[in-house]
Parts: sequence; structure tokens; C-alpha cells
Amino acid sequence: MIRSAIPQDGDAIESITNLIDVFSDEEKKCVPELWDEYITLGSEKSGYYFIVSVENDTILGYACYGLRALTDGTYDLYWIAVDPNGQGKGIGRKLLEGVERNILQMGGNLIFVETSGTPKYELTRHFYLKVGYNLAATIRDFYSRGDDLVIFTKHLT
Amino acid sequence: MIRSAIPQDGDAIESITNLIDVFSDEEKKCVPELWDEYITLGSEKSGYYFIVSVENDTILGYACYGLRALTDGTYDLYWIAVDPNGQGKGIGRKLLEGVERNILQMGGNLIFVETSGTPKYELTRHFYLKVGYNLAATIRDFYSRGDDLVIFTKHLT
Repeated sequence: MIRSAIPQDGDAIESITNLIDVFSDEEKKCVPELWDEYITLGSEKSGYYFIVSVENDTILGYACYGLRALTDGTYDLYWIAVDPNGQGKGIGRKLLEGVERNILQMGGNLIFVETSGTPKYELTRHFYLKVGYNLAATIRDFYSRGDDLVIFTKHLT
Repeated sequence: MIRSAIPQDGDAIESITNLIDVFSDEEKKCVPELWDEYITLGSEKSGYYFIVSVENDTILGYACYGLRALTDGTYDLYWIAVDPNGQGKGIGRKLLEGVERNILQMGGNLIFVETSGTPKYELTRHFYLKVGYNLAATIRDFYSRGDDLVIFTKHLT
């Protein structure tokens, strides 16, 4: 089941984040910052939305997204992560579909995803292509030398 | 002369912002928000840097930029504006060169510029190409329907 995250999900979200090998330490620290704003201010004021995938009372993954400033309905997908023990079961795809449904309900029409061009993100890039995202751009050496920015987009209808 | 902005430059920066026809009302409101953070917190804490172009004690333009989170030396150019009465004199180019010098000094190596694909931004896009920026990507309908995102980049050496 996909649902909006509630305060009690915080520990599970942090645990899953720490299990994701491809996230750097700096990235792992970033998730709790957005989470704290989401919990203390709420989605509207913080600009952050968190949803979780739950089976048998266990959180198996989460996604975080929000409206890009100065746009009329473009949402950034900030984070999406699935517990390594639950991968390969379509949880990532269901989370992304949940994100898309919520964005459509809020009147949004474009999802903007930034990821890395390094080999360790190859499965991630493959995932976005497989679920119908468009490889929109590659910006060389964006994150650091040898680590390109790869932008995927999906126009919602 | 190009120099870092000081608190006394605030009024001139706001005046110039309000004279720029292509900026929307929402965009015009955004500049003072960044300016307030720059003045109250300083560049390091706020993440915003402002420089101005000054001739005969008059501010003719400004630029605002900052390090993109989670990158190793990629800087966003948030705003660049030249007083309409001073346009066509190379002030925009000098501001951009000032931004590039400062970024290089801070160890940065990539400038990332987001602008609009609408006809009213045609001169802006032409400007970036003329001063050696690379048209890196176009994201359809990003700002709103019919208003694409156009990304320009420059790798500094």
C-alpha cells in the first residue's frame, strides 16, 4: 500500500536511507533535514511531500517530492529509495506511480528527476527508462569531475 | 567596476529588478528574499553571492549566484540584470566574467544557468551563446505550458 508518510515512519525512512549504498554520506544527511521540515511544518509550508510503501506494517520504501519554485506544476522528485531486502518486487515502480497520482491530483503536469551518470547509478537510470521516463539531458561533470548529472522527465496527462 | 554587493546597494538592486520587463512579479519578489538572506546571514551561511557593476557611484547591474547543494564546485547563476538604460554597453558580459572569476577563486568549475525558452527571452539566450555558454538542454513546458526550461552551462578552466 502506498500512503502519505506519518511521523511514526521517520525511523524506518532513516534506516532505509542508511541502507542505500549509492547514497553518499552527505546525501544520507540530507533526507532527515527534509523529513524534519515535512513533519514540523507540513507539506504545504515546507514544500516537501513524503509517501511510503507499506506491507504488513513494514515500511519497504519511500519517495520525497515537491513543487519547483517559479514553475506552474513542475515537481522535483528529490528522493526515492527501496529497502534492499525488498528490491525487485516493483516497489519502486509503485512508489513512482503514487508520486505521479498525487502530483496529478495537485494539478501538476511534469516530473523532473536528477540522478547521476556514474556506473553505480546504472540500475537507477535503467529503472527510469523502463517506467517511461524520458532521458532529457546529461550535464557533464555536474556533481564532480567524472560524475555527470542525468535529467529524466515525465509529462503527466 | 565589478565588486561584491554591500548593504547600501539594496535599493538600487531592487530598482533595477523592477525595471526588467521579462521578470514576472513572482520573480521580482524572489530577488529581495535572496538579498535579505545575503545581507543578514552573509554569503557563506546563506549560500548566496551578489556582485554589482558600478560606474560613477551608480549601480548599473547585478548578478546573484551560489553553490548547488550536493555538488563539488557547480554554481547556479540565479539572477543577472542590467539597468535598461545601461544595456548594450557590455555590462552583462562584465558581470558574468566577475561571476566566473569569483567562482574559479572559490574552487568552482561549472556554471549552470536556467532560463526560459519563450520569445521574450530570445535576447537572453543569444547573450549566453555569444559569451561562450553551451546550450546543454531544453525541457519542454517546464515553467508552464509553452514555456520551456533552457539550460546553459560553462565549464571553467
